Amino acid sequence: MKILVIHGPNLQLLGVREKDVYGDVRLEEINATLKAIAAEEGIGVEIFQSNHEGEIVDRIGKAIGTCDAILINPAAYTHTSVAIRDAILSVKIPTVEVHLSNIYAREEFRHTSLIAPVAVGQVSGFGALSYSLGFRAAAALLRERAHGTK
Amino acid sequence: MKILVIHGPNLQLLGVREKDVYGDVRLEEINATLKAIAAEEGIGVEIFQSNHEGEIVDRIGKAIGTCDAILINPAAYTHTSVAIRDAILSVKIPTVEVHLSNIYAREEFRHTSLIAPVAVGQVSGFGALSYSLGFRAAAALLRERAHGTK
Amino acid sequence: MKILVIHGPNLQLLGVREKDVYGDVRLEEINATLKAIAAEEGIGVEIFQSNHEGEIVDRIGKAIGTCDAILINPAAYTHTSVAIRDAILSVKIPTVEVHLSNIYAREEFRHTSLIAPVAVGQVSGFGALSYSLGFRAAAALLRERAHGTK
Amino acid sequence: MKILVIHGPNLQLLGVREKDVYGDVRLEEINATLKAIAAEEGIGVEIFQSNHEGEIVDRIGKAIGTCDAILINPAAYTHTSVAIRDAILSVKIPTVEVHLSNIYAREEFRHTSLIAPVAVGQVSGFGALSYSLGFRAAAALLRERAHGTK
Amino acid sequence: MKILVIHGPNLQLLGVREKDVYGDVRLEEINATLKAIAAEEGIGVEIFQSNHEGEIVDRIGKAIGTCDAILINPAAYTHTSVAIRDAILSVKIPTVEVHLSNIYAREEFRHTSLIAPVAVGQVSGFGALSYSLGFRAAAALLRERAHGTK
Amino acid sequence: MKILVIHGPNLQLLGVREKDVYGDVRLEEINATLKAIAAEEGIGVEIFQSNHEGEIVDRIGKAIGTCDAILINPAAYTHTSVAIRDAILSVKIPTVEVHLSNIYAREEFRHTSLIAPVAVGQVSGFGALSYSLGFRAAAALLRERAHGTK
Amino acid sequence: MKILVIHGPNLQLLGVREKDVYGDVRLEEINATLKAIAAEEGIGVEIFQSNHEGEIVDRIGKAIGTCDAILINPAAYTHTSVAIRDAILSVKIPTVEVHLSNIYAREEFRHTSLIAPVAVGQVSGFGALSYSLGFRAAAALLRERAHGTK
Amino acid sequence: MKILVIHGPNLQLLGVREKDVYGDVRLEEINATLKAIAAEEGIGVEIFQSNHEGEIVDRIGKAIGTCDAILINPAAYTHTSVAIRDAILSVKIPTVEVHLSNIYAREEFRHTSLIAPVAVGQVSGFGALSYSLGFRAAAALLRERAHGTK
Amino acid sequence: MKILVIHGPNLQLLGVREKDVYGDVRLEEINATLKAIAAEEGIGVEIFQSNHEGEIVDRIGKAIGTCDAILINPAAYTHTSVAIRDAILSVKIPTVEVHLSNIYAREEFRHTSLIAPVAVGQVSGFGALSYSLGFRAAAALLRERAHGTK
Amino acid sequence: MKILVIHGPNLQLLGVREKDVYGDVRLEEINATLKAIAAEEGIGVEIFQSNHEGEIVDRIGKAIGTCDAILINPAAYTHTSVAIRDAILSVKIPTVEVHLSNIYAREEFRHTSLIAPVAVGQVSGFGALSYSLGFRAAAALLRERAHGTK
Amino acid sequence: MKILVIHGPNLQLLGVREKDVYGDVRLEEINATLKAIAAEEGIGVEIFQSNHEGEIVDRIGKAIGTCDAILINPAAYTHTSVAIRDAILSVKIPTVEVHLSNIYAREEFRHTSLIAPVAVGQVSGFGALSYSLGFRAAAALLRERAHGTK
Amino acid sequence: MKILVIHGPNLQLLGVREKDVYGDVRLEEINATLKAIAAEEGIGVEIFQSNHEGEIVDRIGKAIGTCDAILINPAAYTHTSVAIRDAILSVKIPTVEVHLSNIYAREEFRHTSLIAPVAVGQVSGFGALSYSLGFRAAAALLRERAHGTK
Repeated sequence: MKILVIHGPNLQLLGVREKDVYGDVRLEEINATLKAIAAEEGIGVEIFQSNHEGEIVDRIGKAIGTCDAILINPAAYTHTSVAIRDAILSVKIPTVEVHLSNIYAREEFRHTSLIAPVAVGQVSGFGALSYSLGFRAAAALLRERAHGTK
Repeated sequence: MKILVIHGPNLQLLGVREKDVYGDVRLEEINATLKAIAAEEGIGVEIFQSNHEGEIVDRIGKAIGTCDAILINPAAYTHTSVAIRDAILSVKIPTVEVHLSNIYAREEFRHTSLIAPVAVGQVSGFGALSYSLGFRAAAALLRERAHGTK
Repeated sequence: MKILVIHGPNLQLLGVREKDVYGDVRLEEINATLKAIAAEEGIGVEIFQSNHEGEIVDRIGKAIGTCDAILINPAAYTHTSVAIRDAILSVKIPTVEVHLSNIYAREEFRHTSLIAPVAVGQVSGFGALSYSLGFRAAAALLRERAHGTK
Repeated sequence: MKILVIHGPNLQLLGVREKDVYGDVRLEEINATLKAIAAEEGIGVEIFQSNHEGEIVDRIGKAIGTCDAILINPAAYTHTSVAIRDAILSVKIPTVEVHLSNIYAREEFRHTSLIAPVAVGQVSGFGALSYSLGFRAAAALLRERAHGTK
Repeated sequence: MKILVIHGPNLQLLGVREKDVYGDVRLEEINATLKAIAAEEGIGVEIFQSNHEGEIVDRIGKAIGTCDAILINPAAYTHTSVAIRDAILSVKIPTVEVHLSNIYAREEFRHTSLIAPVAVGQVSGFGALSYSLGFRAAAALLRERAHGTK
Repeated sequence: MKILVIHGPNLQLLGVREKDVYGDVRLEEINATLKAIAAEEGIGVEIFQSNHEGEIVDRIGKAIGTCDAILINPAAYTHTSVAIRDAILSVKIPTVEVHLSNIYAREEFRHTSLIAPVAVGQVSGFGALSYSLGFRAAAALLRERAHGTK
Repeated sequence: MKILVIHGPNLQLLGVREKDVYGDVRLEEINATLKAIAAEEGIGVEIFQSNHEGEIVDRIGKAIGTCDAILINPAAYTHTSVAIRDAILSVKIPTVEVHLSNIYAREEFRHTSLIAPVAVGQVSGFGALSYSLGFRAAAALLRERAHGTK
Repeated sequence: MKILVIHGPNLQLLGVREKDVYGDVRLEEINATLKAIAAEEGIGVEIFQSNHEGEIVDRIGKAIGTCDAILINPAAYTHTSVAIRDAILSVKIPTVEVHLSNIYAREEFRHTSLIAPVAVGQVSGFGALSYSLGFRAAAALLRERAHGTK
Repeated sequence: MKILVIHGPNLQLLGVREKDVYGDVRLEEINATLKAIAAEEGIGVEIFQSNHEGEIVDRIGKAIGTCDAILINPAAYTHTSVAIRDAILSVKIPTVEVHLSNIYAREEFRHTSLIAPVAVGQVSGFGALSYSLGFRAAAALLRERAHGTK
Repeated sequence: MKILVIHGPNLQLLGVREKDVYGDVRLEEINATLKAIAAEEGIGVEIFQSNHEGEIVDRIGKAIGTCDAILINPAAYTHTSVAIRDAILSVKIPTVEVHLSNIYAREEFRHTSLIAPVAVGQVSGFGALSYSLGFRAAAALLRERAHGTK
Repeated sequence: MKILVIHGPNLQLLGVREKDVYGDVRLEEINATLKAIAAEEGIGVEIFQSNHEGEIVDRIGKAIGTCDAILINPAAYTHTSVAIRDAILSVKIPTVEVHLSNIYAREEFRHTSLIAPVAVGQVSGFGALSYSLGFRAAAALLRERAHGTK
Repeated sequence: MKILVIHGPNLQLLGVREKDVYGDVRLEEINATLKAIAAEEGIGVEIFQSNHEGEIVDRIGKAIGTCDAILINPAAYTHTSVAIRDAILSVKIPTVEVHLSNIYAREEFRHTSLIAPVAVGQVSGFGALSYSLGFRAAAALLRERAHGTK
């Protein structure tokens, strides 16, 4: 069992800029934490960051048959990408959406997510912890499906 | 340190009806799980369910000085209660919002939360697991604040 | 077989005030008429009035296993209560919505009912007669279901 | 005293097609039931079906002086016909609006009725029974007006 | 030179009903006045009333080559008929729109005219006088075009 | 009996600029025509042009007791001036609104008139002729009121 | 196997007026082309034009049991007719919608089709060719269904 | 003569929390001031605070025959309670609406008051002084009505 | 200490026309009352009426250094004047907004005030009393600021 | 003469996933069919698939001087890409838009196409057949332009 | 060649108040800079400030034949004045719109400019520099037109 | 000091196509002009064009520490790219937005810029000159910041 982690646009700058909004944890630290949790849960993990909508669509398309769940922070593409939404719909892999900040306490255009309706669930507002909780949720989903309870 | 858990309207029926939407876990089971996590985290927990908006507002108002965080599933009041929003604003206790179902995949009027902008963060869509993850997030918030890192 | 009749907020004042809008029939007279029809139809009836959204939600929740249909005039809560809508959804008891006045000929915010999409049907605009017709409709529904024709 | 019953567009197909939405009762059966109720109530009845907005407008215009109430299922014209609304306004004959299905549980454009604000009241969602209840309401209106109580 | 006068739905009832809104002048009196003005102006006149959108579309289509201007009171179809708008667009005959009442002082849905953008101009609110003024305007248009000044 | 004619902003440039939209008739020519019609009708006329919303409001306020009707082309203030609307409401002098161009065939913000709901009626789209027809309508209103027929 | 072709309002004028928008092909030429294709495909064809919404609804209702597919250019009724939409829904005959012009490049109210959601598919913008392509699509649908592949 | 003072939800916390928004005056101090003004004006006063919409509706309903005016700060229910609006409409007791803060300078959803259209007038933005001014207004209303001047 | 009182457009007609809406008190009477209160409070007062948006903007601009508070009834400019709003913002003089009528019980476009968000508070609906209460509020503000308590 | 065929995002998965929505034909089969039609029509064809908005914009930009028409299925970018719209506008190459599914019978955000207003026409809803019909339309356009008839 | 510079309402206070928003440069300094640039460019300059919409309309109307371009900072009238827009349209003098602040980073009602669609271009957000850049743009326009290149 | 110049999608075609909208200056000519101004101002310049949203986001992210200001013409991405907006927000480098055409005089969807609220200012509508003026503004910003005046 493997979970694909996708970091959306501008997240390569995490912990470098805008620390007041997103905290001072760097992306590598988050990745290290996720790998530790994955090891603990006995689940494989693959991590991918891109500023390109098309590359994220490509990557999701290639997950068929190799990944069992997706953990995605779509960042800015949350609000504009029908293509990522369609990619998730197409591959039919259960997907968890995470956000570092509480998107509902920011500009109004950030209150709507095109990804949310096709995700299993969301975790948002807890900084780097959003990723850990989201990963735990994805892992639980895989276990549930493995046990045939859902 | 104590976390106040609030279950909003109709949640007394959880696991009894509409199992296809909300799962078959009963509210007592969720409460038992939360108490177990609280014990494990060394945090006190107080649990409250009401179908009355006013009672929930009363309860939040009385939390001043006795509770350090709130975990709330506002259920139907998510979308209509300015009074609960104002109560959270008034007591200034960090609040985590949880939902059993993915509210973004349901009727459009459920896509907007009056509570979200005044909460720290949200967890939604993972059934009973949403509560556990939300409780972990609230506990982490308390630890962070205790350590002065936030 | 029993039908639960729920009168929403301010209906305790019926026939006392605003007679030009709602007529001069008092609530007790309506209740007496409904009891007479119930007797005639051989159906039990239980009547409840409250100005509290939470009490109405409580009452609907408790109807599981004791009532076979609900006849509700949600009054002001027609337009604002997701909690009552969710209660009806939760208990899965067939519900008929009635209104004394023609809500479509009044202020625009009264043209939208949160209850209508989860009710079986509506009767509105005929004053006290709306209740009688709605009760007949609920009774017919029960008979149909008893006969397995629906 | 006579009641004019108007069936709007596509109702000639009732009970022939789309039985899952509208039931399997044919229009003739509804008409027979209405005639029986009319006989029982001692009221004349005239029945008219048309797919043409203009013919319905014509028919309403000619009702002046010959009919005392109108029972109309405007069907698709419910949502688009200002002309039928104006016809009802012009002839000043009390009108009851009925719908077989619960229009508030269908597509959003069916939630608004141009006829509702000029009708006395509405009955919707009870299948063929909507007509019977609506006819009873119209008959009651005529009796009330005859007795000068309204 | 000939002007085609079209009276829309329900205008056959003019002066019979709703005198408080539309005045007590009957349609025949308006027609007589228009014929008198036509005679005075030396212009032919043809008058047509229908409650049927399709008949009005038919009539406009047949005006090609026989009428030089159209004077239309589209009544209820003002707000709903793209078909009449398209008919006017198709025949390219200059059209004057008139209304008896001030449509801007009535319900909001009457504030928008689908016909107005394809008409030369409008006269509304002056009761039967709207027709006379509109006819004078149409006659002036014909003279102007005859004289090549427009 | 006297009619006050008010020309709104930029009309001093009529016939000088934008002849393709407004025609090549100059404001003085329109005024001359109106005076001729007034003489013919035996009615006094007073003419006023201003680019200042406040001056127009002043002028309407001073019309109490000296003018019997108002003919106004509010031009750009049609769409923005609540103050002129309130002035007309305050003085309770019957007002006719005219426009040179067909405002419904121009930019969307020109489709709404704040003046229309408080005017008796409108004439628009006939160039300079709109003024003549509007003046005739105002004169007819005065005659009607003098004869007590309205 | 037979395809019913319906031409909506004002199409009787095709090729006579507005050639810049709709081209100079006459309706008879389109009909001749469709008959030729039908012959080539070995499919029967029946052609109907009307300016009356009600006649089109009548015609669709009568197609039950005699036609296997419908090819419709609803013209102006595309944007306003719930009745035609309901007729198509009622008869459950697969329907192809065609438009001569590109309705998305015209006025905004033409961008929404009430027919599109109940049609199988659309062809628009190719002038007379839209009909031919739409007919081919309808024929292919019939073949597919005959072969049980869909 | 007696004035009923109603404090809406969360006002029990006044002067305890959110002092930057609502000031540091406690509710008891406001009540003391109102009692002093009442004594000075020779008017009775009854004071009621509740976080429950239903209790406020109950209290207004019971004011018939015992109170002559209502002074209400509906707080959060200002924006959501049709039930309180209907209660005020039902009892027909003149009502003055007050707000501590300037609700028009806060979040957009606070700009609309469901209570305002059924109140006599509003005072908002002056902190505790809003109550005093509102009480004076209510007292003046009572005097005026007693003197038959209004 | 001095308060500048500004009366907006059409208020010169107060008590002369539309007495049913605005009462029969004349502007001079209101001014006399305000002067009496000012004398009683030991505060200077300057009174200004204009129908011109620009003059009101001029007057506010000149208040810098000479007036300590502004009491304004912007009348029709309440809903349309960004310029007056900006003038108040520019001079940073605390401003109280008053209205004679309850603007929330009138036409919808009167429900929004461009001035409200930049005023300290509002008083509306109490007729001439609105001015007195507003003046008291402005005087209290000046006293508070003088005492450094706010 | 050459036609450029562009397949938008996620179409590389066609026939692999979501067969219930898009059918089980693979992209290669569609391409083979298009090549066969091209050969039959004597037209060159170039085929391009990309999940990247930018690559599609690049490809359209390079089509100047090498391609005579474009056949595009913009898929998810239909609803979000102003850049592809601008590319089509810039190169001024006639473009036909196709969709496999009936986008008007899906989620509301799929009802609007940014591409449609700059395309010649659209074909949608016929599965793989949409491409064939669209290609035929593009070929016909080229022939017409070659013959100077359009 | 001469450029007319128009400063809209409240700009007489520039550099006196609200320095945090608009900077501390006074209007005279901006005027001095513009005159210096004009001298350098060999262009005449005329400067006008007014708080009155009507005076600005007057001034633009009088620019015919005396000014070759207009540089306008419409300030508050940017968002409300159709009259200034129409004046610019009427005189057909090329106009450049400038703003000191970035209007798109302020309140939402400031995001829409009625002037922008009739101006040649805009410069906003650079404080006093916006004027200098706008003046350079206007001068360039005049040179281009003089050279017949545009 | 260095300024990064970014040209958005389709600008590689500048001066090649759509000369009527964007003029006939080629992108290289604009670049040459900018380099000349940069040399004159003693500022470094780096120029980048891409049709890929992701590449623009990448490029902005890499500007940290190497560029002091950004001059961007986001072209089509102006209206759709939250990712570019977030990139500008993340790197906190002062950004000037330029447009060749007056976007406010084009289609409505071009009137809203997602970039404007995070830019310092905008220059639009002056063709190639927009770039020069924008570059001057960016250079002035750098000088001001260097001099600590802002």
